[in-house]
Amino acid sequence: MLPTAPMLLTPGPLTTSARTRQAMLVDWGSWDERFNQLTASVRARLLAIIHGADSHHCVPLQGSGTFAVEAAIGTLVPRDGKVLVLINGAYGKRLAKICEVLGRAFSTFATAEDEPTTAADVDRLLHADPSISHVALIHCETSTGILNPLPAIAQVVKSHGKRLIVDAMSSFGALPIDAREVPFDALIAASGKCLEGVPGMGFVFLDKQALAAAQGNCHSLAMDLFEQHRYMAETGQWRFTPPTHVVAALHEALLQYHEEGGQPARHQRYAHNCQTLLEGMAELGLRSFLPAAIQAPIIVTFHAPQHSRYQFKEFYERVKAKGFILYPGKLTQVETFRVGCIGHVDATDMRAAVTSIAQVLRAMDIPLLSASGVPA
Amino acid sequence: MLPTAPMLLTPGPLTTSARTRQAMLVDWGSWDERFNQLTASVRARLLAIIHGADSHHCVPLQGSGTFAVEAAIGTLVPRDGKVLVLINGAYGKRLAKICEVLGRAFSTFATAEDEPTTAADVDRLLHADPSISHVALIHCETSTGILNPLPAIAQVVKSHGKRLIVDAMSSFGALPIDAREVPFDALIAASGKCLEGVPGMGFVFLDKQALAAAQGNCHSLAMDLFEQHRYMAETGQWRFTPPTHVVAALHEALLQYHEEGGQPARHQRYAHNCQTLLEGMAELGLRSFLPAAIQAPIIVTFHAPQHSRYQFKEFYERVKAKGFILYPGKLTQVETFRVGCIGHVDATDMRAAVTSIAQVLRAMDIPLLSASGVPA
Repeated sequence: MLPTAPMLLTPGPLTTSARTRQAMLVDWGSWDERFNQLTASVRARLLAIIHGADSHHCVPLQGSGTFAVEAAIGTLVPRDGKVLVLINGAYGKRLAKICEVLGRAFSTFATAEDEPTTAADVDRLLHADPSISHVALIHCETSTGILNPLPAIAQVVKSHGKRLIVDAMSSFGALPIDAREVPFDALIAASGKCLEGVPGMGFVFLDKQALAAAQGNCHSLAMDLFEQHRYMAETGQWRFTPPTHVVAALHEALLQYHEEGGQPARHQRYAHNCQTLLEGMAELGLRSFLPAAIQAPIIVTFHAPQHSRYQFKEFYERVKAKGFILYPGKLTQVETFRVGCIGHVDATDMRAAVTSIAQVLRAMDIPLLSASGVPA
Repeated sequence: MLPTAPMLLTPGPLTTSARTRQAMLVDWGSWDERFNQLTASVRARLLAIIHGADSHHCVPLQGSGTFAVEAAIGTLVPRDGKVLVLINGAYGKRLAKICEVLGRAFSTFATAEDEPTTAADVDRLLHADPSISHVALIHCETSTGILNPLPAIAQVVKSHGKRLIVDAMSSFGALPIDAREVPFDALIAASGKCLEGVPGMGFVFLDKQALAAAQGNCHSLAMDLFEQHRYMAETGQWRFTPPTHVVAALHEALLQYHEEGGQPARHQRYAHNCQTLLEGMAELGLRSFLPAAIQAPIIVTFHAPQHSRYQFKEFYERVKAKGFILYPGKLTQVETFRVGCIGHVDATDMRAAVTSIAQVLRAMDIPLLSASGVPA
């Protein structure tokens, strides 16, 4: 008997469909032609999402999304390059940390966690430091859920003749990204996010010319995307043992993504989830951290109830007992918690989660306020 | 409906039990206490297999086994260290390639692919070059299936005051390795090998003192096993998104490993598989590449039939159509193919595979010879 698992309202790993998980019930030979076809199909379907078949290669990589981000930086940034890292949260800081560990020169530009980087910022910074070769950006910063203006920043980076590396981990598949209109050298995401696969592999969309010029840059054998791509192009196989079941699950998830209506439909469902969540929580008097204009429909940060009886751990465990796993906050200045809008969940699930949160807060004897500030 | 999958007689990914695959039907929150407990249980069970709880930490890592090998070398070998790499096949060569890419000084010692490295070789080499700090060894070289004498080499390395890094990818869990008697700084394996989990994570057994001294060595953020261990020790969580379903499958596989009788029982089943395979193939006149004394019961390399009508691809496809996936040879000098003895398979399966191979060779009109050299 399988345990009944709570629904994951988290930024990934997230709730997947039973059909996606059942795709893992078969063992695949990693050398076999049928598995090669599965890999090729996954890569082609991923490229189609960004309309990138003409301009980019899709190179998958074993490991978590961070492995793919490190691989992209290590493969594309030459040893004498310099990276401008744009930061408004934990994942932006991680980009800088990767540059530091890899020994790539870098500078950082940080805004507040509720303040998107602007194209004007990037324009000014690139004017001020011509030694910068690459700009690294988080599209949707999972720390808060904030959305940075990728298309405008990409145009500014291109106008300076510089190269862009985008961590689109939590946005890819849900938010529109069109490689025909948004210039970038690398855009990185992973299996267990908005595509609703299971975690275990990342993938990088790499500009064909930039990749062709990247031989010998990488600091790592396993993370060298130039070699990963070359081997796959020559043999159809992964260079090192692939996570076969994870690949099969992603393939099945991509079939469902297509059947649902692709990126526009995925975006619409998540936006509806997010709206339902925000409205329901507002009725409980729980305020979101970000203003609506910069809130991506991926994950929402809420201010914790300001009451002495509120403890996140107890709150989390009680909500989990009702069938929903929430996510802790990641801000240092204010106490928050997060609720994901992504995964195989819909607005009915979001309403049920809000109802459970309301019941738990009442059980914890934490007064609920209406949106107007009076007790609900 | 699921397709009927052929049985994998390959060195991993391999055939797993239905119970192991079914453990992937649940989504786990990577931050949740229940998943932390799963991770802790996996680590403790792995350590118990080598009797290493007192001396070693078990640090899991996302990705394939090669990622874990690179991580071990990068984390343990200081930037001014020097590695002696012992080579008798493709995986030994890969160790040297890792050292080269990571910028660690190294020297190599190669024997023929059917000749184990000896402790006397290592003793002589360490006498000749005192600048060597670490020795890197493949326990069972999957290229051929050859077994290198780990315990004797480990004692010699220790007697010189040097450090040993062992790639035990295809032997761990089946062949006996006792950390109380065999000194090593790192021993590396992966989920999808003799433990019969699915591929997607590796793990490294690290000598506690060696790991404690390894801060700042690593060339990579994601592969830094010092930081991976520190974070896990502090939080119980993986530092970056874990392959949750792969971890759950490995946990279920470890429960079955224990129920079967642990390492001695696993070894016995594989040895019986190997013996059954060797005897059956000998009856067909198909000769194994290695002499029995150095043949590990993991994977067997066979000489291809010397006949103009033999083509590996056709042979492979015909055997696959009968339900068994074989593995290509990896030798440059002689034409071979390989058959794995590991995975959720038993002697009955091996006999069925031999029967299928015999039928295919007859269908290809390739004469079979008896062991005595006369037509069978």
